[in-house]
Amino acid sequence: MKSHTSYLTFNVNARMDFVHITDRVQEIVAESGITEGLCLVNAMHITASVFINDNESGLHADYKDWLEELAPHDPSRYRHNRTGEDNGDAHHKRQIMGREVVVAVTEGRLDLGTWERIFYGEFDGRRSKRVLVKVIGG
Amino acid sequence: MKSHTSYLTFNVNARMDFVHITDRVQEIVAESGITEGLCLVNAMHITASVFINDNESGLHADYKDWLEELAPHDPSRYRHNRTGEDNGDAHHKRQIMGREVVVAVTEGRLDLGTWERIFYGEFDGRRSKRVLVKVIGG
Amino acid sequence: MKSHTSYLTFNVNARMDFVHITDRVQEIVAESGITEGLCLVNAMHITASVFINDNESGLHADYKDWLEELAPHDPSRYRHNRTGEDNGDAHHKRQIMGREVVVAVTEGRLDLGTWERIFYGEFDGRRSKRVLVKVIGG
Repeated sequence: MKSHTSYLTFNVNARMDFVHITDRVQEIVAESGITEGLCLVNAMHITASVFINDNESGLHADYKDWLEELAPHDPSRYRHNRTGEDNGDAHHKRQIMGREVVVAVTEGRLDLGTWERIFYGEFDGRRSKRVLVKVIGG
Repeated sequence: MKSHTSYLTFNVNARMDFVHITDRVQEIVAESGITEGLCLVNAMHITASVFINDNESGLHADYKDWLEELAPHDPSRYRHNRTGEDNGDAHHKRQIMGREVVVAVTEGRLDLGTWERIFYGEFDGRRSKRVLVKVIGG
Repeated sequence: MKSHTSYLTFNVNARMDFVHITDRVQEIVAESGITEGLCLVNAMHITASVFINDNESGLHADYKDWLEELAPHDPSRYRHNRTGEDNGDAHHKRQIMGREVVVAVTEGRLDLGTWERIFYGEFDGRRSKRVLVKVIGG
């Protein structure tokens, strides 16, 4: 069994935004030399997500509005913020969008559907954060 | 390391519905000849889910009502629909229910709890869609 | 390829609570002897979750309030409860928090970010429930 581990770093200027990372993950799969296996992509921070959906700016704007409705930023709402943080909302938004995706690697490539694209989701930006990519297989 | 890849196709008549697929996934695990490993099952479409929960029709009706509350179909609510689509809600519902499950394979079988059942979740039906099943292990 | 399977049992006194399990999962990874691979940790029950977030009691209290807003316990709300159950809400809360996490194993350890901690999430407690930990790799 072969394995390959890589880390990506992001520094998003906004509090909340989505970064398209499919091509960077595909490059790591190619570097791994693995042709059949699984590729894990996860946020290493608990106020960020990795998810798969459409690369369409209207949808991303819809997601931001929706997440703000489901878990408003307002720092006074969260006991977590009594620790001196103001990112209680980000810990909730991240649970909706998820921590990780696992993608099949088939014939040396990410085995994605036609419209599937991988995104890094930031919910408490303006700081440096990491994503882990681990490929295992043969 | 062995691996096995299979694709299932669904064409659900309703806009939103859930299809029980545990037996079909178990058959694919048996075909793979893998006795110890992991089985990834994911929707290849971004308006559909694969999830694990109860095979109980009342719960499924509850899920439909709940998802409709959290992300109503009303096409006018979503900027995504300005692209000519009417499925903005489906992209949101799918985030709640998730894209994929990873299930352990132990002694040649899906290692599921007593009530765990695998479902395909459709949120924008009346078209043909695919699910990927990838088993890796030894 | 090596694999290792272990089961943890929980009996949570409250209806809803979160149990920190990172150390127990790390011990299982050490027992496995696997140095590079993937570790799946999943609830085997459909009214429970395994998720990764902060080990901070204020945040956990926030999560409980938020999940109660999104899916109130009130048994009369759920068709599922006509089967004689009173846990319809728990099946919904678990979908928000997720069934499973997949964590990279690198150099023999769980490859977690600084603040990432693994939790068992109980939404219908006062009974014995299991979590599966499966490590595969080399």
